[in-house]
Amino acid sequence: MTDRCVGIDLGGTFIKFVATDRQGGASEIFELPTPTDRGPEGLVEQMVRGARTLIDQSTEAGDRVIGVGIGSPGPLDLAAGVVIATPNIGGMTNVPLRDMVSEPLGLPVVLENDANAAAYGEYISGAGKDADDLVVLTLGTGVGGGIVIGGEVLHGAHEIGAELGHIILVPDGAPCGCGQRGCIEQYCSAKFMADRTMARIAAEKPQTALNAIMESKGSIDAKDINDARADGDSFAAEAWDQTARYLALGCVSLTRIFDPDKIVLTGGMAKAGADLIEPVRAHFIDLHWDMTEIKTEVDIATLGSDAGSIGAAGVAWRRFGS
Amino acid sequence: MTDRCVGIDLGGTFIKFVATDRQGGASEIFELPTPTDRGPEGLVEQMVRGARTLIDQSTEAGDRVIGVGIGSPGPLDLAAGVVIATPNIGGMTNVPLRDMVSEPLGLPVVLENDANAAAYGEYISGAGKDADDLVVLTLGTGVGGGIVIGGEVLHGAHEIGAELGHIILVPDGAPCGCGQRGCIEQYCSAKFMADRTMARIAAEKPQTALNAIMESKGSIDAKDINDARADGDSFAAEAWDQTARYLALGCVSLTRIFDPDKIVLTGGMAKAGADLIEPVRAHFIDLHWDMTEIKTEVDIATLGSDAGSIGAAGVAWRRFGS
Repeated sequence: MTDRCVGIDLGGTFIKFVATDRQGGASEIFELPTPTDRGPEGLVEQMVRGARTLIDQSTEAGDRVIGVGIGSPGPLDLAAGVVIATPNIGGMTNVPLRDMVSEPLGLPVVLENDANAAAYGEYISGAGKDADDLVVLTLGTGVGGGIVIGGEVLHGAHEIGAELGHIILVPDGAPCGCGQRGCIEQYCSAKFMADRTMARIAAEKPQTALNAIMESKGSIDAKDINDARADGDSFAAEAWDQTARYLALGCVSLTRIFDPDKIVLTGGMAKAGADLIEPVRAHFIDLHWDMTEIKTEVDIATLGSDAGSIGAAGVAWRRFGS
Repeated sequence: MTDRCVGIDLGGTFIKFVATDRQGGASEIFELPTPTDRGPEGLVEQMVRGARTLIDQSTEAGDRVIGVGIGSPGPLDLAAGVVIATPNIGGMTNVPLRDMVSEPLGLPVVLENDANAAAYGEYISGAGKDADDLVVLTLGTGVGGGIVIGGEVLHGAHEIGAELGHIILVPDGAPCGCGQRGCIEQYCSAKFMADRTMARIAAEKPQTALNAIMESKGSIDAKDINDARADGDSFAAEAWDQTARYLALGCVSLTRIFDPDKIVLTGGMAKAGADLIEPVRAHFIDLHWDMTEIKTEVDIATLGSDAGSIGAAGVAWRRFGS
């Protein structure tokens, strides 16, 4: 009989489900739509339905599910297992999600921040699987993060740590939605690279293939910039490289603080793969101190959007696997 | 019978010694001169002599010493207990200090980086004694740091973490001796505040009381700047406040990363006490995000130069106190 833990990744559109064994070996991942019109009860019902599917499969195979991990957007009260609020899922205010899922399943449940769960997923079976200490930067619309030190997720004293997108990268720099100025999120996210590039196009009228895209679509995104760069557009190349350099600056500071085995980039922008990681690595080498050799590797995530559910199951293993 | 651990803080001029009990209660701290002309053997002899004094005192009192902690400048190989090099103490290259001290004493010894030991001292009986998670910034000639998370000192995967003075504060800023540009050390240390102020005096010829000090002494230091500030000198006040603001920028980023209970400032510049911490706190409040209330307190260390030996004993307790 093999023990398994179920991981649930709660997203704004889909809920993802997986079951993993002690070694991190994962079942096929499946998803169910996130119900948005039936409040917390509808959401819990869907989560329980998905989990039961995996529990039944395990039982049929003669295996046993010993616990469940949920990765949820937040802010959360982890100790109490409560979702305080979720920006992208309505009706989720002060919801005791952990206990609401635990009771019908009759299994212990642990709640984790979704970015931390994704980082933990990369740690146990992704790009960080050979790392003891790992830092993950999630480059999406915003920039999030997760930190794993010797197998432990860093939460901070008040569960508001690992907000790596809000490290101040440029003193008195661009205003951020968080109320600070110059946050990493303002220099390294896909959205801000696109916004900054569009602002430069409007102000400087450069010769660039991006002009035609602006005219036809009314806007450009990070992928347009990378595509134009790949086609030899020098304005686009400069915009792309500038973002890579800002990322590398952040990676150097994170290396000085954590000295991790790896820093892993994930999220939408990391889909650019080598196009992103190669210039980031080049700048990282250039900006890194010379007091020691470079011992931290900067890399691209391997699990993509599966990291959250696999990591949530891993968090359950860490808590409930004796 | 009370168990005790001995803490030894190895400095360039003096070696400090203390014995602490399980609760962190400390004996009187004493120091012996650092022998600089007899190589590692002379140094070890002095460390053993000081430790024996405390061991004998404990024996006479019917108590028992169970282990020894040494805080040493580095770089170190902690796992092997080896001092790789010490910039300010000659002849200390690849010295197996841990075993050299352990053998004559017949006691287990643990080696720790001196900045980490000092941070741990503040954690167990100084400004951080009520904190679970603590970040310490040491503001001396350079800027060092120490991080304690849930009682564990953060070392990094290759024992080169917690180099908080080399977080990049200003992209493409002032060149640092480490080979990077814009390090915290270049904006927040006493030396650099003085150097920057002297450079401004030479370039801008401002009206300031510091001119007279420059003329009489040939240079100014951080204390001169603070004294002039206290006397109402507006140029000096601006220089002092600018450094406080840079420190606050660093504290905001450390708060976003670690969400610690406290960030504690120590080292020579922290002797300014309220004169330093008040403007740092004001800027910290001003620069902090508005996503959550401020939960991290910025404070001044309370143990001063005793933190290293007390922390070294604490590290021994952590390792050898069952």
